[in-house]
Amino acid sequence: MISELEQIGQQAQQAAFVLGQLATTVKNQALLAMAQALRTNQAAILAANQQDLQLADKLPAKFIDRLRLTSERINQMAQGMEQVANLPDPIGVVERGWVNHAGLQIVQQHVPLGVIGIIYEARPNVTADAAALCFKSGNAVILRGGKEALKTNLQVGAVMQQALSKLNLPANAIQVISDPAHETANQLMQLTDYVDVLIPRGSSRLIQAVVQHATVPVIETGAGNCHVYVDQSADFAMAEKIILNAKCQRPSVCNAMEKLLVHEKIAADFLPELAAKLTTAGVEIRGDQAVQQILGAAVVPATMADWKTEYNDLILAVKVVPSMETAIEHINQYGTKHSETIITQNYENSERFLSLVDAAAVYVNASSRFTDGFEYGFGAEIGISTQKLHARGPMGLPELTTTKYLVRGNGQIRK
Amino acid sequence: MISELEQIGQQAQQAAFVLGQLATTVKNQALLAMAQALRTNQAAILAANQQDLQLADKLPAKFIDRLRLTSERINQMAQGMEQVANLPDPIGVVERGWVNHAGLQIVQQHVPLGVIGIIYEARPNVTADAAALCFKSGNAVILRGGKEALKTNLQVGAVMQQALSKLNLPANAIQVISDPAHETANQLMQLTDYVDVLIPRGSSRLIQAVVQHATVPVIETGAGNCHVYVDQSADFAMAEKIILNAKCQRPSVCNAMEKLLVHEKIAADFLPELAAKLTTAGVEIRGDQAVQQILGAAVVPATMADWKTEYNDLILAVKVVPSMETAIEHINQYGTKHSETIITQNYENSERFLSLVDAAAVYVNASSRFTDGFEYGFGAEIGISTQKLHARGPMGLPELTTTKYLVRGNGQIRK
Repeated sequence: MISELEQIGQQAQQAAFVLGQLATTVKNQALLAMAQALRTNQAAILAANQQDLQLADKLPAKFIDRLRLTSERINQMAQGMEQVANLPDPIGVVERGWVNHAGLQIVQQHVPLGVIGIIYEARPNVTADAAALCFKSGNAVILRGGKEALKTNLQVGAVMQQALSKLNLPANAIQVISDPAHETANQLMQLTDYVDVLIPRGSSRLIQAVVQHATVPVIETGAGNCHVYVDQSADFAMAEKIILNAKCQRPSVCNAMEKLLVHEKIAADFLPELAAKLTTAGVEIRGDQAVQQILGAAVVPATMADWKTEYNDLILAVKVVPSMETAIEHINQYGTKHSETIITQNYENSERFLSLVDAAAVYVNASSRFTDGFEYGFGAEIGISTQKLHARGPMGLPELTTTKYLVRGNGQIRK
Repeated sequence: MISELEQIGQQAQQAAFVLGQLATTVKNQALLAMAQALRTNQAAILAANQQDLQLADKLPAKFIDRLRLTSERINQMAQGMEQVANLPDPIGVVERGWVNHAGLQIVQQHVPLGVIGIIYEARPNVTADAAALCFKSGNAVILRGGKEALKTNLQVGAVMQQALSKLNLPANAIQVISDPAHETANQLMQLTDYVDVLIPRGSSRLIQAVVQHATVPVIETGAGNCHVYVDQSADFAMAEKIILNAKCQRPSVCNAMEKLLVHEKIAADFLPELAAKLTTAGVEIRGDQAVQQILGAAVVPATMADWKTEYNDLILAVKVVPSMETAIEHINQYGTKHSETIITQNYENSERFLSLVDAAAVYVNASSRFTDGFEYGFGAEIGISTQKLHARGPMGLPELTTTKYLVRGNGQIRK
């Protein structure tokens, strides 16, 4: 007896086999058709979303905002799919090729991963975004969103499946899991026979749960406890501008700044004006003893927990450090290896910081908010990997592929 | 309270920080010094090995042969380290670089993974081989070999550590776990705070245990249920030569052939002569009904289990198929996605087979025994990945790295 989820897995695998062979033009046509279908079926999607919203009416306003779809948001989802259609196809690209000592023609070519599982929370736009990226890269996708968005996700999934069926393409290329039970998510994490990769998207709690329970290989995304270190030689005006941007422009996201480290030689000169501007911007400042001495009573004392915490909010913990080396040590100890920044005018320090800090992206004199697939010019983003295997940093379409060695011979045997 | 294993992890992380900054020449000098130290300390290593061998005297001869070191084998280990010293350094290599829309200079550069855990069985040469590859790629390594080889591994580890200390390099770059308890291996698989990647090397039972228990990301290596499909258009002489090589040249390894699929139109012509040669070479043939009809009583009937089994021995299961499509379906269902081969003179079939078979390496008219880091020209091999994330197929030094984005700006903020 095969479980319902295993059947979904099997169907996905069969669809992936077809998908891996599709021409780029066929995939692009399908993406445009799915985008159009989202617009055409707007009413049905909004009705399903309304049902989800009614059940969610006791949840926090922030949560409900993420869950809510509007005509405009559906149009954005459709535009996203159209943008993915315009991106280069990562499949078939040859990574390298050579002739070995025995005369074998060896080519390493990019091919789809196969079946990708996406586990996410209450943003229904992820359903369309992730489906588009997986589809373009020739992968079948199994989508498991938050139960609060279930009816919306199922409707969005059904609309995309109908569009695929109309083109005689396998509808099972995109499947939304309809069983909201927690146990189903756990089963998906163990479905090694059918799922090649799991990508969790959402809170660090969700991601850690997936890392802990999955036997399917996981690409860890997300958590960002990002630091800015202001060096002794920093240009104060530039430092202020970058800090205000990195902290305040969108505090809820993973590439936002969470911690400020300031060299002790400039702390007393630099901090008061910065603190005033941060306070004006609504930022709560938490400081170590040295910061408290400089800024006085306005500062909340920072505790050990502060150095480890990703606030995702208008809070900034500030620490005075005796040297860049101490700053680097602090970052390598408490950071989440996401995005780390130095503000400096000193060439040697910039190079040492770039080299010694262990993170997906290390910045000199720029805002960490740039760690993003679109800002990097990838035209898309499935997430930001904070692990070291396979992909590190913003992941676009090429990161949704693996490779295969094609070896052409004429009778070679091994000696 | 920190456990002994956590302490090993912490020490490895500290060593990795130093290692990641070492110049290529310094790493090469250290590798040459460690190689020399293995030769100089041969007596101590052989004495430790003798102790392991005495405890193992009730184990099978094959097992004892793997465990046994000789003067010649120690010299081979040393030569292996010297060869690694001669390979290009994968660290610092720039994968790509560009300027983004905001004028940021973005460079994606190869850096070490950090700390690598290797879990392996009774071959003590892995201790030196894996240490050399990890060291050259700037990674600290934690080695956990089979308990039967414990004294040997500890002695080899101590010799390498002494050589590092003499050069004022961190001895903890190479650590051998001394606690043989099963529980320690399980703890290592969960040591996410300190270990970046686990690479199991050995039997598929070992590898599956690691995949099941690890929360540290794993690179799966090994299992190879490799097929050869002989197409209707095959050159019989070439097919015979390749099959005898792929099956018999070294049957115990993962890239050896395990299954033969033959097109029904040529089976009666092709199989009898091949079977005679295989039998002469000591190969036991197991066949489906069609094969039994052609070859008669000499053939052992193949069961369902045969199609799934990696024998690693002089056994070959043979099946007659009505078409190439059936062969591909069979391979994608029962194969382990390692190395798969077609023998054909038909151009279209060669291209379709390359495209439709899902495996790390797909061969036309060549022996699957070529799936190997040395044969591919990598100069080294840490294993053959059969998973799709990070690395697929033979892994050399570049596969022991990750990347980091270095981003140089002049005050850019996100709009």
